[in-house]
Amino acid sequence: MNRFLKACRREAVDRPPVWVMRQAGRYLPEYREVRRKAGDFLAMCRDPEVAAEVTLQPVRRFGLDAAIVFSDILTPLVPMGAELSFGPAPHISNPVRTPDDLERLRLPQPWSGTEFLSETLARVRAELDPETALIGFCGAPWTLASYLVEGATSRSFTKVKHFAHHYPNDFDRLLEMLADAMAAYLRTEVEHGAQAVQVFDSWVGTLGAEDARRWALRPARRLLQSIADLGVPRIYFANGGTHLLGDLGEMPCEVIGLDWRADLATAARSLPQHAIQGNLDPGVLMGPDEEIRRRTLAMLDQAPNPGYIANLGHGITPDVPVHAMKTFVSTVQGYRYE
Amino acid sequence: MNRFLKACRREAVDRPPVWVMRQAGRYLPEYREVRRKAGDFLAMCRDPEVAAEVTLQPVRRFGLDAAIVFSDILTPLVPMGAELSFGPAPHISNPVRTPDDLERLRLPQPWSGTEFLSETLARVRAELDPETALIGFCGAPWTLASYLVEGATSRSFTKVKHFAHHYPNDFDRLLEMLADAMAAYLRTEVEHGAQAVQVFDSWVGTLGAEDARRWALRPARRLLQSIADLGVPRIYFANGGTHLLGDLGEMPCEVIGLDWRADLATAARSLPQHAIQGNLDPGVLMGPDEEIRRRTLAMLDQAPNPGYIANLGHGITPDVPVHAMKTFVSTVQGYRYE
Repeated sequence: MNRFLKACRREAVDRPPVWVMRQAGRYLPEYREVRRKAGDFLAMCRDPEVAAEVTLQPVRRFGLDAAIVFSDILTPLVPMGAELSFGPAPHISNPVRTPDDLERLRLPQPWSGTEFLSETLARVRAELDPETALIGFCGAPWTLASYLVEGATSRSFTKVKHFAHHYPNDFDRLLEMLADAMAAYLRTEVEHGAQAVQVFDSWVGTLGAEDARRWALRPARRLLQSIADLGVPRIYFANGGTHLLGDLGEMPCEVIGLDWRADLATAARSLPQHAIQGNLDPGVLMGPDEEIRRRTLAMLDQAPNPGYIANLGHGITPDVPVHAMKTFVSTVQGYRYE
Repeated sequence: MNRFLKACRREAVDRPPVWVMRQAGRYLPEYREVRRKAGDFLAMCRDPEVAAEVTLQPVRRFGLDAAIVFSDILTPLVPMGAELSFGPAPHISNPVRTPDDLERLRLPQPWSGTEFLSETLARVRAELDPETALIGFCGAPWTLASYLVEGATSRSFTKVKHFAHHYPNDFDRLLEMLADAMAAYLRTEVEHGAQAVQVFDSWVGTLGAEDARRWALRPARRLLQSIADLGVPRIYFANGGTHLLGDLGEMPCEVIGLDWRADLATAARSLPQHAIQGNLDPGVLMGPDEEIRRRTLAMLDQAPNPGYIANLGHGITPDVPVHAMKTFVSTVQGYRYE
């Protein structure tokens, strides 16, 4: 079994596995080349040939331990009824603002409408070395609900908090519907070749502990629990969730992903039952190579073993030089557990 | 002495004092009325009659324990050489991108170029009841350096991190210059009537602990230390700094301001020498009045005593209804320490 899947299960490995959030992205010249020809971001996601190619690009270049299928957390909202576009920031032209708006949302049963992703997964799996894992993903219910209500990336999240506070039962219904939809969606991903899944709770950090428990962690648990039978490692990425470490230990998943605000040693003590994934500041990749190496080694020395997957603490940014990514990855690849 | 100043010094008070970050703002109809006539945001700041009027508006309406002078953390960057505009988001048209760009920055000695603010403070102080404190403020060095380098509000802060990693000595020089400039600026604020000062480190939460220590907390300490002789309470607002609680205890100030991700009881244990200010989620003010009341009371019950100042965990947002602000403030005003 490959190094990434072993580490997810807290089994012994020779060195930490490494992959990077948004590794198929604009910092890569070969990605920009494909994108120039292929048109907009959603069109790329929907073309399995293009999506498979960009999924594989970083794996070929850096020899990563895992590929993550090229997509966006918002794409499965389209078959649910969202009118989504990227300009390049995501925009939903029919946001959910009242309980009545929920009637427009549907949960395709069986799940359908993302067949392009299934084909992309199958293509990537066919090309990947058995030593490289294929990761599927989705957004967490709170994060998706935020986009559905706000209609766009927000700074203050006041529209979704307005909805949640004023219509608590309807909001719970929305969160549960999203949990069930994403469970079905991840199920199709695993059926088509995903060997692990990551649930991105990109916006859980906008909630204090009380609200995070009811609006983010509870529906994410519902989602994670309902795919337990798939038998693949489940990663819950709690972006900005340093204040929730005490609660994350109860998440029904194998791996907790953390951003760079979290102290890995503290996190490992709080999460003795989970593998941990993260968490170098993507901003460190803006620095000189020797600093990237020093900070990466410091992170690896502090990380738990077994049960650790090296990654950044958030997606790699478009302005990162390719050599910086190379330095990060090869530093992990050159590391050896005693 | 008024309730707010006593609480800053951890002296006994009958109830928690209360004020709200950005209390003079767009959620108030009387503010929007003034703004319609006065033109853009910077023009309002620079007109002492207008700025004094909007500073006083929320105090008149809600009977708050403190007024905070109407301004923006970026205004003192203008006499330092920044070409600043608000459209409405802040924009600096001559950002600092290389060490050479630092040569354009100047530290007026003695401090000058913000005489409008001094006049505003004097006007407000003359009108305020002695029971209402007047707060002056500035941005913290890291936060101001981020704006100077990025040129605008950023999501990823890669430009400032690039600068900091590649030119560490120059970046230290920039941070020290900003610390010294803001110390001089706060000094003029206190000379003209500010009875307490708040240093806003709005972006400290974008840094992991190691970087926060050298780029945010160290220069903020320099700033806070160098105004110790003024004898007024100093508040350091560590927005997004829940992961830094262990370090915040060493800040040379009387009060630590926290956002809503922090648990107040935990914070109070970590900060036994400081008063604490905060930290209701501004998003709670989007909810029904009974929820605002419940959450405010829960916060007050958890807060330390003595040494606590009720506030939101971040600035009030423009879409908050006036009655919600009223409910928050009057819930605090109706609370009594046993």
